[in-house]
Amino acid sequence: MESVSFPPLSRVAICGGTHGNEMTGVYMVREMQKQKMDKTGSLSVSIILSNPRAVEACRRYIETDLNRCFTSDLLSSPVTDSTPYELKRAQELNAQVGPKGSEEAVDLLIDIHNTTSNMGLCFIFYSIDWVTLHILKYIQSKMTSVDIRAIQLDLPISEAYSLESVGKHGFAIEVGPQPNGVLRADIYNMVKEAVDHIFSWLQEFNSGSTFEGGEVEVYTLVKSVDYPRDAVTGEITAAIHCQLQDNDFKLLQRGDPIFLSFSGETVKYDDEELYPFFVNECAYYEKKIAFHLGRKIKLTFPSINLTG
Amino acid sequence: MESVSFPPLSRVAICGGTHGNEMTGVYMVREMQKQKMDKTGSLSVSIILSNPRAVEACRRYIETDLNRCFTSDLLSSPVTDSTPYELKRAQELNAQVGPKGSEEAVDLLIDIHNTTSNMGLCFIFYSIDWVTLHILKYIQSKMTSVDIRAIQLDLPISEAYSLESVGKHGFAIEVGPQPNGVLRADIYNMVKEAVDHIFSWLQEFNSGSTFEGGEVEVYTLVKSVDYPRDAVTGEITAAIHCQLQDNDFKLLQRGDPIFLSFSGETVKYDDEELYPFFVNECAYYEKKIAFHLGRKIKLTFPSINLTG
Repeated sequence: MESVSFPPLSRVAICGGTHGNEMTGVYMVREMQKQKMDKTGSLSVSIILSNPRAVEACRRYIETDLNRCFTSDLLSSPVTDSTPYELKRAQELNAQVGPKGSEEAVDLLIDIHNTTSNMGLCFIFYSIDWVTLHILKYIQSKMTSVDIRAIQLDLPISEAYSLESVGKHGFAIEVGPQPNGVLRADIYNMVKEAVDHIFSWLQEFNSGSTFEGGEVEVYTLVKSVDYPRDAVTGEITAAIHCQLQDNDFKLLQRGDPIFLSFSGETVKYDDEELYPFFVNECAYYEKKIAFHLGRKIKLTFPSINLTG
Repeated sequence: MESVSFPPLSRVAICGGTHGNEMTGVYMVREMQKQKMDKTGSLSVSIILSNPRAVEACRRYIETDLNRCFTSDLLSSPVTDSTPYELKRAQELNAQVGPKGSEEAVDLLIDIHNTTSNMGLCFIFYSIDWVTLHILKYIQSKMTSVDIRAIQLDLPISEAYSLESVGKHGFAIEVGPQPNGVLRADIYNMVKEAVDHIFSWLQEFNSGSTFEGGEVEVYTLVKSVDYPRDAVTGEITAAIHCQLQDNDFKLLQRGDPIFLSFSGETVKYDDEELYPFFVNECAYYEKKIAFHLGRKIKLTFPSINLTG
């Protein structure tokens, strides 16, 4: 693979509290603001609490899920009296660190999330982006005691709905398991370490280092599975089975139990072998998702350096 | 110790959803209603979703914490336009399964809760009550693979603020760790098994069995510890230390780390040896409680049988 070059990655945004009850990002962003980390070596860092009203209320969102508001259509929709708070806030953020798809957008946008699923530390991104893959590989090489994985959502950038899609490069860091509204020190430390490594990589890159190409494993989203539900009331009639609970990224095979109904029956998996993730994520009950299923692929990436 | 006698314990209430985002009780109550378990052998069972509006919103409460509304003063306070929804609901529940302290109250009230703390299955009750201690001992003997503990809150019944205080006998079953808004099958099964054993004990008692006296360990609440906070903003400046996190009921000794500040300093425990519980409970951030501390005591209880 031929090597690729990019201009300096000096304008960075670190966001937390995009979902107001995911506490790692909330406290990380507040601490970075307190430590005045907006100038760090070659980096100019925007440190952003994305959804302050939801943080204040300790809820995922006030009117609508902020992290579904960053499609090109929504970002350019006119504001009226009935525009939800979060869509207005998305347009503000787009003005601050975007505009999405423009030359003025920050070079790298990192958005910190938590999940109640047992997913360890997970990058989530859209199109295959060499910078993101290099940073992923770098962190994997530095944090060997932690499971660091990546999920790729295959959507064109205009349809990419989450905050990280506003940067020229960007990804979400999704870390769990952590209950909403709770801050765990182990997870806080893990994310802090990851952010420190990202900053180190950026400094090295901006100072002219070449990073060799390589290969990473990535999970691609194939489909989502809903809970069994009562046909009349729509209420769920089963929980994630104990053998699937906490087993994100372990290959699901035909015949494996996936649900346990409240009356005691086991529902078994009966489809092609895929990898589950976001298993029993709190916020996905309302989105009718019990878990996602994905395929594991290998991505090869070229060596990377600063534009000449 | 002399043996004691009680009249039949035939009117029972099983409550869930007193906090609307604690899902075990919500789904257990719905399933018991579906299975029409209101008549079970010698038992007449009121199956109650305590806070339906909070359940609907998947929040702990709508206006005020329902499970702090059951003091005698609050239950007898006049209802006005500004009375919070939950206080009105408390008075409704008191009319339905109480009135508290009266002969008409249900014989046994069990309220099902979840915590984000790693507390296993835990009984919580007020005054020392022989029926509760017998049921506790019985469940401990039946469910040997689960940590089953008990916490006693030493308050006179008139000041007892939670729903279980409305029954002639009563206790909360507090089970964790489970994130708010999430249902775990392992915890659901554990609580289901406990409720089944409670029903068995009641049937045996009502049929005239004598239960021998014995001894149980109980934790009594000594005090609560708040998070370190910023003197100006009031925001927390530290998380529960990794060495305390998930270690509910493990003796805390002088010098043990209890908090890790966001800037990296460890705060150590510097007080008498006590047992922590409700460590990092989500709902207690707003109550300014990082964890409770208690003492472990042994309680001896007499043999018990039906009034002759």
